[in-house]
Amino acid sequence: MTRQTEPSAGQHMSAEVASQPKIFADLVARRGEIAEIAAQVSARRPRFALLAARGSSDHAALYAKYLIEVLLQLPAGLVSPSTTTLYGAQPDLTDVLLISVSQSGGSPDLLEVTESARARGALTVAVTNTPDSPLNNAAELSVDVGAGPELAVAATKTYSATLLALYLLIDAVRGGSGEHAAALGELAQQTLDESAAAVQEAVQRFRFVDRVLTTGRGYSSATAAEAALKLAETSYLSARSYSGADLLHGPVAAVDAETGVLAVTSAGKGGAAMSEVLDVIHSRGADVFAVGSAASRVSAALRIPVAETAEEVAPVLEVLPIQRLALGLSLARGGDPDSPRGLNKVTKTR
Amino acid sequence: MTRQTEPSAGQHMSAEVASQPKIFADLVARRGEIAEIAAQVSARRPRFALLAARGSSDHAALYAKYLIEVLLQLPAGLVSPSTTTLYGAQPDLTDVLLISVSQSGGSPDLLEVTESARARGALTVAVTNTPDSPLNNAAELSVDVGAGPELAVAATKTYSATLLALYLLIDAVRGGSGEHAAALGELAQQTLDESAAAVQEAVQRFRFVDRVLTTGRGYSSATAAEAALKLAETSYLSARSYSGADLLHGPVAAVDAETGVLAVTSAGKGGAAMSEVLDVIHSRGADVFAVGSAASRVSAALRIPVAETAEEVAPVLEVLPIQRLALGLSLARGGDPDSPRGLNKVTKTR
Repeated sequence: MTRQTEPSAGQHMSAEVASQPKIFADLVARRGEIAEIAAQVSARRPRFALLAARGSSDHAALYAKYLIEVLLQLPAGLVSPSTTTLYGAQPDLTDVLLISVSQSGGSPDLLEVTESARARGALTVAVTNTPDSPLNNAAELSVDVGAGPELAVAATKTYSATLLALYLLIDAVRGGSGEHAAALGELAQQTLDESAAAVQEAVQRFRFVDRVLTTGRGYSSATAAEAALKLAETSYLSARSYSGADLLHGPVAAVDAETGVLAVTSAGKGGAAMSEVLDVIHSRGADVFAVGSAASRVSAALRIPVAETAEEVAPVLEVLPIQRLALGLSLARGGDPDSPRGLNKVTKTR
Repeated sequence: MTRQTEPSAGQHMSAEVASQPKIFADLVARRGEIAEIAAQVSARRPRFALLAARGSSDHAALYAKYLIEVLLQLPAGLVSPSTTTLYGAQPDLTDVLLISVSQSGGSPDLLEVTESARARGALTVAVTNTPDSPLNNAAELSVDVGAGPELAVAATKTYSATLLALYLLIDAVRGGSGEHAAALGELAQQTLDESAAAVQEAVQRFRFVDRVLTTGRGYSSATAAEAALKLAETSYLSARSYSGADLLHGPVAAVDAETGVLAVTSAGKGGAAMSEVLDVIHSRGADVFAVGSAASRVSAALRIPVAETAEEVAPVLEVLPIQRLALGLSLARGGDPDSPRGLNKVTKTR
């Protein structure tokens, strides 16, 4: 994206973060439209699901993988696009549902994966924020995330709205009404308001940190992954995400008193399973910043509250204070989160 | 693991790294035994594959995912154990092949995933280094990696031997004879010998680095992931792995002249696709250390040679100099790679 003018740093990202409550409410209001797409998916009775995505959308795909496995009881996997684009794999995809997730709908590798999967029998669904994109044309069905144009290079509203669209789609495939999403607009506003002070404190405390580790379990592992990416791309921090379970299998060795740990702990089974992980992290002297609706129930140096919801929609809200943390840290460290060095809005990988 | 005595630091890891050429040769000699297991898999004509693993084995599973998609032309996914262990998902797994990969065969979550998948119709195969483990008992079929007891906490020979066992298994499922593996014993020795000087130089140059990024594409993305884990757990470096494609979607913003980049570049399509990624990394002033059989063909600050093989078995060799790098760096930084702080050999996550 070519920039003609230099608006004040972080202006776009800040406005886009703040716009999410309304976007969620609008998207929930469109759930009938998404349910029509879902009905076509149900009618085809897929037996296996694949998800294709890159970057932030890959974390939305990880969230969708949990939803599909738990709510639809279907086995699911994340596509490695290069098996198609580099190695020309041509598997039989009869009975397979392929969901391609891309904010821009313009990534050449996802386009090739989607076209190839459709030709090989998969039911293809594009979830994008750009309804007339090449990806939408390539896929049999499409869901419009409806977040509006995103001007900051760092994805915020398109990420959270994609999560919500995926929840509404997948819940509707099993005949649900998206009930857990009904109040997400209001709860998002509540989360932004109630987390503001703690986020500001976290910005101060992370100002000089160089090594950040993010962790979560279950649905919230997507939030941990997105948090690491957002911090790395806006604040140039060395941020690494691990599922709480994988963390104990080796990477915990790198956790020490110099490490800032951002742990996602929401009410529910994923958050509850984090307590063992947090005990180990604590014993190593790391500063734990807990984010989530159960943050108040764990021992942490700082707690960032998030409104409580059913666990399967918690990631839609958990990411909001994390976006504000990335924004604040980037500004505090002298960066411009609207336009991080070296990044373009649409990345054309093959 | 309780340690009664303190042998000299790194002694076990060093011996285990050096033992790999013989382990590979022995495993290749057992390919007939593995082909018998493979014949039982072929007979069941699976339509989808799932891979379950944690830690280093998760990277072996990623490698197997590429093999299955490209060589068997089957869609494949990595299991998120928590959808079973936390959320109790019970999908119908008829026609599904589940391969559970674990050095110890003792991880409770993999055991639960395997038992549950078998009860729901999956053909279950355990690939372990412990033939009488609970995981082997839970799975219908088993492949013994045959690497012998591993005394260092950091996995080396069990990782590479697991890759090789997975290649022999998957190639045999399609009726192959494992031909690309035939010479891996000799080529492993050649790789260890010919890379020694460059590894020593890399140890010196990485001595004070704090931020390391590893990257690869295609089959070699497993090597990049394993490299990051090995450096994090033995040398406490902040090491993060990205597929070459994902790197350009955001994390490249965190790459600067302070970053050490370890790029896996082997002969073949994955290595060729790295050139675009390396150009971007170079332009940001990072030090690139190229590891692989095509390392001599890319521009890099340092090249670590690996013997050339067919691309699908390259990861078995690529990891060897990386293990030596992790060992050397750990010692240079005053650590003991045999027994990294805070790690146990078997991690019991649920």
